[in-house]
Amino acid sequence: MLNHPRLDLVFQALSDPSRRMMVERLSRGPATVSDLAQPLDMSLPAVMQHLQVLETSGLVRSEKAGRVRTCRIEPNVLATAEGWFAKRRASWERRFDRLEAFLAEEKEQQTTKSSLRKPRRRS
Amino acid sequence: MLNHPRLDLVFQALSDPSRRMMVERLSRGPATVSDLAQPLDMSLPAVMQHLQVLETSGLVRSEKAGRVRTCRIEPNVLATAEGWFAKRRASWERRFDRLEAFLAEEKEQQTTKSSLRKPRRRS
Repeated sequence: MLNHPRLDLVFQALSDPSRRMMVERLSRGPATVSDLAQPLDMSLPAVMQHLQVLETSGLVRSEKAGRVRTCRIEPNVLATAEGWFAKRRASWERRFDRLEAFLAEEKEQQTTKSSLRKPRRRS
Repeated sequence: MLNHPRLDLVFQALSDPSRRMMVERLSRGPATVSDLAQPLDMSLPAVMQHLQVLETSGLVRSEKAGRVRTCRIEPNVLATAEGWFAKRRASWERRFDRLEAFLAEEKEQQTTKSSLRKPRRRS
């Protein structure tokens, strides 16, 4: 997992709020560059630069038909990045399960010890 | 979601493979700076610099007791970032559900039209 150049580029691409907004828009369906530019209040060349970063990361691909460039999300690349977080969460949760098991065992040993020290009187 | 300075810093922090490796290690439990440095084959000052980026993003916090600095993951911040991806996936899946519903409706209309054009002969 140390050398995962795609994740480097994906997280780098998503560290910018305008690029995240473009990905949010494209998650709802394909869009032209003008569609993407509109809510961002940004020039087309600026949007094209952000698009280039997103395309290099693999998060987005685009196709030009005539004068219109249509952009699409790459859900597999989003899934890879989401999977990275899911693995960290799984590690974290396993650690808590182990801690819980350890504490339960400790408690049981304490109970056994104290019942050995103070045996119940027979009635 | 456009202005989410924490996500800017979190994704920026995770765009580096050494910092991702530190987060992976800390997901399994707290660690000292030396623990973090060891698999990275990196000087302590270099690790401290990466740690600073992770702390600024909120992903990690550290405490010094005597001469030992112990680092811990902040699971809530990881969860926020994971949640961002989950929302994009939900949008994507909703889009597919809508497309599926649309196609089913189209198919039904086609079937109705063709049955109107070619009514069954009465026997």
